[in-house]
Amino acid sequence: MRKIRVELGERSYNIIIGHDILSDIGRTLDRFEFSSSLAIVSNPTVYRLYGAVVSKSVTDEGFNLTEIIIPDGEEYKSLASVQKIYDDLLRAKLDRRSAVIALGGGVIGDIAGFAASTYMRGIAFVQVPTTLLAQVDSSLGGKTGVNHELGKNMIGTFWQPRLVWVDIDTLKTLPRREFLSGIAEVIKYGVIWDAELFNFLESKREEVLKIERDSLKYIIGRSCEIKSEVVEKDERESGVRAILNYGHTIGHAIETVTGYKRYLHGEAVAIGMHVEARLSRVLGFIEDAQIARIKKLIESYDLPSEMPAGTDFHGLLETMKLDKKAASGDLKFILPERIGAVKIQSGVSPEAIREVLQGI
Amino acid sequence: MRKIRVELGERSYNIIIGHDILSDIGRTLDRFEFSSSLAIVSNPTVYRLYGAVVSKSVTDEGFNLTEIIIPDGEEYKSLASVQKIYDDLLRAKLDRRSAVIALGGGVIGDIAGFAASTYMRGIAFVQVPTTLLAQVDSSLGGKTGVNHELGKNMIGTFWQPRLVWVDIDTLKTLPRREFLSGIAEVIKYGVIWDAELFNFLESKREEVLKIERDSLKYIIGRSCEIKSEVVEKDERESGVRAILNYGHTIGHAIETVTGYKRYLHGEAVAIGMHVEARLSRVLGFIEDAQIARIKKLIESYDLPSEMPAGTDFHGLLETMKLDKKAASGDLKFILPERIGAVKIQSGVSPEAIREVLQGI
Repeated sequence: MRKIRVELGERSYNIIIGHDILSDIGRTLDRFEFSSSLAIVSNPTVYRLYGAVVSKSVTDEGFNLTEIIIPDGEEYKSLASVQKIYDDLLRAKLDRRSAVIALGGGVIGDIAGFAASTYMRGIAFVQVPTTLLAQVDSSLGGKTGVNHELGKNMIGTFWQPRLVWVDIDTLKTLPRREFLSGIAEVIKYGVIWDAELFNFLESKREEVLKIERDSLKYIIGRSCEIKSEVVEKDERESGVRAILNYGHTIGHAIETVTGYKRYLHGEAVAIGMHVEARLSRVLGFIEDAQIARIKKLIESYDLPSEMPAGTDFHGLLETMKLDKKAASGDLKFILPERIGAVKIQSGVSPEAIREVLQGI
Repeated sequence: MRKIRVELGERSYNIIIGHDILSDIGRTLDRFEFSSSLAIVSNPTVYRLYGAVVSKSVTDEGFNLTEIIIPDGEEYKSLASVQKIYDDLLRAKLDRRSAVIALGGGVIGDIAGFAASTYMRGIAFVQVPTTLLAQVDSSLGGKTGVNHELGKNMIGTFWQPRLVWVDIDTLKTLPRREFLSGIAEVIKYGVIWDAELFNFLESKREEVLKIERDSLKYIIGRSCEIKSEVVEKDERESGVRAILNYGHTIGHAIETVTGYKRYLHGEAVAIGMHVEARLSRVLGFIEDAQIARIKKLIESYDLPSEMPAGTDFHGLLETMKLDKKAASGDLKFILPERIGAVKIQSGVSPEAIREVLQGI
């Protein structure tokens, strides 16, 4: 087991990474000062696979556990699901010292985290991420949220988990396409922060794709370390934390204009990383050879790197301006300077974006 | 104008107390680094009286202002109202640097604060309380929330305002019964913290009831100072902040068993303060003469001090156990030792409570 400490003062917490550790979580929870009533939020697919082992581990320590199952899918990342969680928490009489466990991917973690952060003005929250995307990204950093019909993640809070419990073995049941979507975020950490991690993804591709334990432990561990370090410096995203959005400004816009149907999140981010690297070149910040390596690595993990044919440039641009990260319409991009280093660039002109998008 | 600084690190803010200052708020908001789009949340009654002056003051400084009116009444303190606010904020394209202004009493402040704390993971929030209860209590300290059918204030956050703007002149249009309900909370500060404030309420009763400016500025200012001092020591209510709940354990239970129809909040708290003082005597912590002064002051402001006839003891006790402040059924009370000092007492026996309730 590997332990990574996220230092956020009184909101500090540990990330535990191991294999076959789901059955140990109850003993760890018992060391926190929670009251005897806990709840677990999951989806039907994940709960069928891992619900029993987590539930037994928790109840064996004497906790009461309320099971709350939210249907699979982004369309359930809604206030209606949060209301269902509130109802169940209140009926089960969870109190201010209770904790909510999220067992699943990013959607489950975001919904459960939001519910925990707003139930009785905030109760403890434990992340047990079962997708690669959640393990390397969404389960850490404290962003919670649900969608609104006028925008994704528009309703949410910053609420740090008290513990993140990563069992690598859960990745064995993850569909390959979802696994690769998670790899896109690992590539992102390589580009923005760590050339060595990028090299590892290049040279150990076979091992990573086979979900070989040590390789996965390395890339997940490094990803968690990098994200934690960034979040420690800027918990509420007023500065450096923005670099984690590399690939996401374009990526989110692609997801929006394609109605969240065509691409998984990591796939859209993969395209976004490549397009934003090209934008960096148009602005004179990066060399061609570096972009070629980024594109090649993306594609070697069967991820898309090019914009979908026939993309409406104006629609994409308007979508980016409406992004909640765009301060009053100012377009800010995270632009790589070389593999391992990025800069935050405000005031990027629509013309530069047009040049890149139309050149692809 | 009087300024009280609430020191909470990066969440510090000022409370400004004055008269006829609503028309100055725009200039003050202009000194914050808000974006150009603001929203104001109010109710029809208050907005009819004070909406125009606040709106003009804000728009004269060049802000766009979205008006969001929530109907009067506790039944609108709901997630449905919060959803309406989200809709309006998104349609008006408020961004992460926008601010929400709450103009009204505790209900408006609690709803608007909750919406601000969860819109785009939290945006700035300004309180303009127009009831005495909100001016001395609910507008400060950062508690936000809405009701759930299974309990009041069950959904909420801790989210500090960026500014609290108290115009004493708004009290002139407040119904007398609501004004007196606010006085109950001022009496509370006297009992838990400040014998001098208690003495002032005794000796300056006429001036206070006439809403004489200097007297009101003194009692509101002292109340804000006391609450701020307590909140600075314990923002999230893990310790000393509990003393602000003097009168509230019984008070909340009375509100619940009477269906929130018979008493205003401060009236129920007034009864709660007297009953909890008697509980303190049963447990041997306070003298009769002190209780007599508390009871007399409460009644001198036309507030009730006795339990409603025929109160169901078991119903009351069960309600108290379900209170979100009761850790797993343990009954905790704030018990006065003398005017100006209280203690936090856990593990109070149902028998002691029965003795007090049946003795009244």
